Amino acid sequence: MLSITRPTLLLDPQICKANIQKMATKAKNNGLRLIPHFKTHQSAAVGDLFREAGVAGITVTSVKMARYFAAHGWKDITIAFPVNVLEAEEINGLAEKVDLKIFLNSKEAAMRLKEQLKFPLKYYVEVDVGDHRSGVDSARLSEISEIMKVTGKTELTFYGFYTHAGHTYNATSPAEVEEISRSFQEKLLTLKGHFKEDFPDLKLALGDTPSCSIMEDLEGIDSIHPGNFVYYDLVQNRIGANSLSEIAICLAVPVVAVHPERQEVVVHSGWVHQGKDALTEEDGTTHFGLVVKIKDGKWSAAIPGARVTKLSQEHGVISLPEDLINEVKIGDVLGILPVHACATAVMMGEVWTTEGEKLEMMPR
Amino acid sequence: MLSITRPTLLLDPQICKANIQKMATKAKNNGLRLIPHFKTHQSAAVGDLFREAGVAGITVTSVKMARYFAAHGWKDITIAFPVNVLEAEEINGLAEKVDLKIFLNSKEAAMRLKEQLKFPLKYYVEVDVGDHRSGVDSARLSEISEIMKVTGKTELTFYGFYTHAGHTYNATSPAEVEEISRSFQEKLLTLKGHFKEDFPDLKLALGDTPSCSIMEDLEGIDSIHPGNFVYYDLVQNRIGANSLSEIAICLAVPVVAVHPERQEVVVHSGWVHQGKDALTEEDGTTHFGLVVKIKDGKWSAAIPGARVTKLSQEHGVISLPEDLINEVKIGDVLGILPVHACATAVMMGEVWTTEGEKLEMMPR
Repeated sequence: MLSITRPTLLLDPQICKANIQKMATKAKNNGLRLIPHFKTHQSAAVGDLFREAGVAGITVTSVKMARYFAAHGWKDITIAFPVNVLEAEEINGLAEKVDLKIFLNSKEAAMRLKEQLKFPLKYYVEVDVGDHRSGVDSARLSEISEIMKVTGKTELTFYGFYTHAGHTYNATSPAEVEEISRSFQEKLLTLKGHFKEDFPDLKLALGDTPSCSIMEDLEGIDSIHPGNFVYYDLVQNRIGANSLSEIAICLAVPVVAVHPERQEVVVHSGWVHQGKDALTEEDGTTHFGLVVKIKDGKWSAAIPGARVTKLSQEHGVISLPEDLINEVKIGDVLGILPVHACATAVMMGEVWTTEGEKLEMMPR
Repeated sequence: MLSITRPTLLLDPQICKANIQKMATKAKNNGLRLIPHFKTHQSAAVGDLFREAGVAGITVTSVKMARYFAAHGWKDITIAFPVNVLEAEEINGLAEKVDLKIFLNSKEAAMRLKEQLKFPLKYYVEVDVGDHRSGVDSARLSEISEIMKVTGKTELTFYGFYTHAGHTYNATSPAEVEEISRSFQEKLLTLKGHFKEDFPDLKLALGDTPSCSIMEDLEGIDSIHPGNFVYYDLVQNRIGANSLSEIAICLAVPVVAVHPERQEVVVHSGWVHQGKDALTEEDGTTHFGLVVKIKDGKWSAAIPGARVTKLSQEHGVISLPEDLINEVKIGDVLGILPVHACATAVMMGEVWTTEGEKLEMMPR
């Protein structure tokens, strides 16, 4: 059994495996591939849980992360980020060894890359369907064609269209996610219709966790690339993507001070541990996490009325209900359900199973 | 010369040394000790710059950080965090080797610790002078006395009062910082007056960077423990603690996409690189950093009108003025002045001098 003396990120493998299985089943039911995004867990050991569920290809967010997972035996890797032409050498190193897919979002990037490329690789054109972060606006067909012209007779093979519809993360209900999702899926199908004569095998790939979690019908989509669902969190819960009991990680934190006069305890849990994400509830209040009890490495349901209300570099202040404030003592360990699982995992850099096994993550 | 191909944190040693020297001079002029907080840089190499400026004692925020700097030769270490009684074993290990000071903020913590302590160490009582994060309310004299009673004839020696007046960080002008600072300095002097008969050598220690940067007169204070000033940042600039030209670090980031139609570029710089801190300007707009040009490892003044406007895990979106958007190309490298230097340094985990030397930081 794990002895907790400092901030420690716990993983419940049962919940995690169930999350993976549920998404794998949805992919199967829709006749499409699950190519999960590994940016959330960044862990070779958690990656193995996906292998057990039959996953063969993965998505990452940087060349560095691609190298890490390639070193851990993954052979089909999509770097879901506008290609950084300054990293051509590292991309060559990867393309030599694995079936690599990248994003080419402009003819300029295509021209710069093809000059430096030594091995064949496939590319998606990332399309912007409303989030306006990155990718070519899905209506700008001539811009997309220009990329394909540049890569025409080179080792860069057009593979399909990928979209991360980040605007579903602003939704506050499953119905809203469905509305956004249906609208952009239509845009993708229109694109496919336009280009399918020249590229009959082109793929449509979908990245956002809310759509992948909530939509049952993914007609016409070839692959889904969600990441967060492996752990889930309070943000996804508020969107309606998961229940609180589907959250697979919990940050265990020592109580270092008890302030009954203000019904607060101070814990060793700052933004260096949990990340800085705050959640604004429907009632307008903002907090940095819900609070659970921890016993024998397992955590309870969220304690009603208990929240992380203040956060600095290493301090967390937790507001507790009246009955609990007289019960909690210095040296106790409380748990925090993460607002944003990707952030908490990145900040902690290692994860412990509830059985006490340490799971390594990609070095910073 | 440093070749930048991926997000890289640059340090200008000249600016950094000048920041250190300025604070050291202020300490000297006030006849007090500078015991800088190393949580901002977390780097043994940057610590050496303090040694060169005559600094002998340091402040850290965790047992882990104390161990790191003890391993790099520091012999006088204050852990500025309410003691975590679950780490008594590690504290014993440190107390055996270095002149260790900790925070004892309650009789419960004192009782738990003294049972487990094997080596003498000194303690501050952290006092809360208005920030309400941690520490004993400075008016609760009997609570403070109870701690001293518990430690009376043990190896725990009362050393003085420490305060981190975190509420100065909410100030928006030097005048406001001065007002807050004068008010809590009075509280500290009152405390000293109350306890000086029993503890004639008790020290008064001050932690917040705004007070230490802005106040010229620190009468009655024995030591200052600021951290952020080693690098400074946009938050401290807005408070009035530093000018933009005193910011000693800059995040160099590759441009991966140019969107002239919306006057934006996408850079490889997400919250995993720069941290998630946003700054709200006086005009109500919010951004994640100002933007500079980088040439030969040096950075320019902030480009007027250029800001990081959107941030996700690895993507940053920068809004650029019209003249620049037609100039910037994929594969260029821009620089970002940090909103919060502590966060950017922690996220990056390593720093490069403008001469191309890599400075190690504490492993995550």
